[in-house]
Amino acid sequence: MLNPADDAFVQKLAEAVPDLWMGVPEPRYLEEPRGRWKGQAGVLAKPANTAQVSALMAFCHAARVGVVPYGGGTGLVGGQVCSDGPAPVLVSLEKMTALRAMDAQSLVIEAGATLQAVQDHAASAGRRFPLTLASQGSAQIGGCLATNAGGVNVLRYGNARALCLGLEVVLADGTIWHGLKRLAKDNTGYDLRDLMIGAEGSLGLITAASLRLYEPPAVEGTAVFAVTSPQAAVELLGLAQARFAGCVSAFELISGWGLGFLRAVGPEVHLPFAQDPDWSVLIDLGLPAGMEAEAAFADLYEAAGDRVTDAVVAQSAAQAAQLWQMRESIPLANRRIGAISSHDIAVPVAAIPDFIAEATVLLNAMGDFRLNCFGHVGDGNLHFNVFPAEGRSRSDYDAPPVMEAVHKLVVERFDGSISAEHGIGRLKVGELARTADPAKLAMMQAVKTALDRRGILNPGVILSAPHKA
Amino acid sequence: MLNPADDAFVQKLAEAVPDLWMGVPEPRYLEEPRGRWKGQAGVLAKPANTAQVSALMAFCHAARVGVVPYGGGTGLVGGQVCSDGPAPVLVSLEKMTALRAMDAQSLVIEAGATLQAVQDHAASAGRRFPLTLASQGSAQIGGCLATNAGGVNVLRYGNARALCLGLEVVLADGTIWHGLKRLAKDNTGYDLRDLMIGAEGSLGLITAASLRLYEPPAVEGTAVFAVTSPQAAVELLGLAQARFAGCVSAFELISGWGLGFLRAVGPEVHLPFAQDPDWSVLIDLGLPAGMEAEAAFADLYEAAGDRVTDAVVAQSAAQAAQLWQMRESIPLANRRIGAISSHDIAVPVAAIPDFIAEATVLLNAMGDFRLNCFGHVGDGNLHFNVFPAEGRSRSDYDAPPVMEAVHKLVVERFDGSISAEHGIGRLKVGELARTADPAKLAMMQAVKTALDRRGILNPGVILSAPHKA
Repeated sequence: MLNPADDAFVQKLAEAVPDLWMGVPEPRYLEEPRGRWKGQAGVLAKPANTAQVSALMAFCHAARVGVVPYGGGTGLVGGQVCSDGPAPVLVSLEKMTALRAMDAQSLVIEAGATLQAVQDHAASAGRRFPLTLASQGSAQIGGCLATNAGGVNVLRYGNARALCLGLEVVLADGTIWHGLKRLAKDNTGYDLRDLMIGAEGSLGLITAASLRLYEPPAVEGTAVFAVTSPQAAVELLGLAQARFAGCVSAFELISGWGLGFLRAVGPEVHLPFAQDPDWSVLIDLGLPAGMEAEAAFADLYEAAGDRVTDAVVAQSAAQAAQLWQMRESIPLANRRIGAISSHDIAVPVAAIPDFIAEATVLLNAMGDFRLNCFGHVGDGNLHFNVFPAEGRSRSDYDAPPVMEAVHKLVVERFDGSISAEHGIGRLKVGELARTADPAKLAMMQAVKTALDRRGILNPGVILSAPHKA
Repeated sequence: MLNPADDAFVQKLAEAVPDLWMGVPEPRYLEEPRGRWKGQAGVLAKPANTAQVSALMAFCHAARVGVVPYGGGTGLVGGQVCSDGPAPVLVSLEKMTALRAMDAQSLVIEAGATLQAVQDHAASAGRRFPLTLASQGSAQIGGCLATNAGGVNVLRYGNARALCLGLEVVLADGTIWHGLKRLAKDNTGYDLRDLMIGAEGSLGLITAASLRLYEPPAVEGTAVFAVTSPQAAVELLGLAQARFAGCVSAFELISGWGLGFLRAVGPEVHLPFAQDPDWSVLIDLGLPAGMEAEAAFADLYEAAGDRVTDAVVAQSAAQAAQLWQMRESIPLANRRIGAISSHDIAVPVAAIPDFIAEATVLLNAMGDFRLNCFGHVGDGNLHFNVFPAEGRSRSDYDAPPVMEAVHKLVVERFDGSISAEHGIGRLKVGELARTADPAKLAMMQAVKTALDRRGILNPGVILSAPHKA
């Protein structure tokens, strides 16, 4: 069992690691974006370098005190806030933001750098780091890797895992794993890098990463197509891939409810169609030199036939940004409306239309809801969020049965995922335990015990905390 | 310590799993392509389904008998042949080849299917499974995944790991992990899939996999460019990516020595240039509809300036196949010449020219060698193979110092990989232990112990066998 980071411990830690910044965390370090969890911490530490992280971890390990990593604080599943059990040390790597190296294919950067900073470094060298999230101004690259962040360009470039070449990680006992390789291929033993990525800080603390850089496409274009149905959206994706395989950078489904929410509660954004279509898709193409984006979209529109009822092709970078602002504002509008239950699910791409149809029937039978379903249809990943009927409040509804019904459908009918990109955090620990393959759960526990035998790393994330188990 | 699969054990196993095919292995099951290792086995088992694999593993686990998985037998590092220690059960999944499911984005197939069969299934549905190896007619998909196979299309599509969506795995104690998800995104806990991929059968036995399928590019073309130097090759790759980002499917470096070997010892193939250039690159482009491959290559040739001295663009699929036959025949010519030491190394792409230059100087100082350096320059992965001087034999040379010198340069000077795509097997266990980060080795051992506490899975692969440790 763990010990709390109490005053006596903090004082000894200060003596053991004399130059380590420590203090009382401001309230923002104990909050998360949806306001569902409230964190606690004995102390906030802000190490300045990997050696300090190592000394800190070794000390916590010896004292059996929990360590909770705090990145940009943008995670949606409570991975960054420890709300019960012995008070942990909260660790922020915000002082560790150095760009350690960069060439045409990769860069090496410390974990506290924001995703925006990583993108900016890449752009300064004429390259691109393609991971793109609405929260990239705050989200830190360490957190993006710890949660295997997704976003809107996964279709083309893969998620955070696919974009990472190597890691520097401080393990539970303070040992430093020097794994900052910058290699596209390296078959020298077990894939510990990908084990750390997505482990949400429960197997090690990522202190730096080497990341893939890409040449930006020679020609880029953005358009929104109004489609007649989710089935039409999936077929349109197939038509796009047949023409532009490898060049479809984003393919995002937007529902009429999402546009309606934007009109009702803002933020104020430009909406492309005078009358909001029930379904539309936002498409980015990144094409070879010699092609024209507008002609490519026209070709796709022609091929789509009656699957598509209207389209707007951005005529400038500013118009493209407007279309993306619409897409990226949907989560904020959702928050203003107030979801009863939010679901970050994945099913096979071909099953998307059936999933939407069956989930809608299921929920309509359960109550009077508004369903805003949107997201990364090219990855089979939908944010299927359930809202109160107009004029009613989320407190009128019972949330757990809604979540359980959606997850049951996802898992049992479609062999899908109850967390496509947000992770498990503390929010979905019970749902994971309830729905996952037993052999997978047993392996995860065995790996956790093997790499963090005292259970000090982000206790309660992914797997139940020792004091709860 | 392990027990041998002796006659008494085999008889009890036959009673415990009555329908399991067992017999004495033919010699080919105890050999590997380069003839360096000779295997041993108490018995060869050919399970017909996952339940039989599970029963077999549970029985071996209880009896503490080692299990060595044998795929297509094409691996180059001895992962499939156990040459010492207690005789293991050799397990071939060659009876398990069923295609379990297929849609436009993925297929699910059993591990004993050959890579060629997987490609053929995909092609029959108008799709492509892009993993491509010279040995794909024999190599089984289970082995490709266990070794995280690479090949010539990694640049565009990634290695076997990137192409796998889910796995069914039998664990050391016979437990079946049902992980055949068909999802592009799934952040529900630790990445056990990628842990199994590349573990070379030492953490579990892969019995089936769900694999990504791709839309074939609308327009495809192949060309070979004669370049003035490795530096010119790397710069040409940069020019190609700037024009055709996402559409460069393969970019293979070929040395004059390789072409000379083909002329000297065959196999007889068509060579594109009357006079063999010192360096050339074989390029595949897969472009969007509306482009022309010949024009794209002409544009690239123009942009390359004096980096390129000649080029041949395939005018037909048959000509493209000829060019690829040249590339794929190089390993056979190498085998006929007889390498002193072969190295499957990776360095950052930008460091390729320096690596070749420095390794050449280093080896020239060590003795009189011919160096055939070729491979996947787009991935930073070279097969840097060292041959005797003309008229001399490999037995005139001392191989270990050559390998150690090359690996030392790769690791210490370039932070590279001593096994980019072939894996560790039994051949490089010592080299890995000598060169890897200590924290990485300790984590690998902890994971191995956590998932296979009796050490029965492919003993001696990647990490030292218990009887040697």
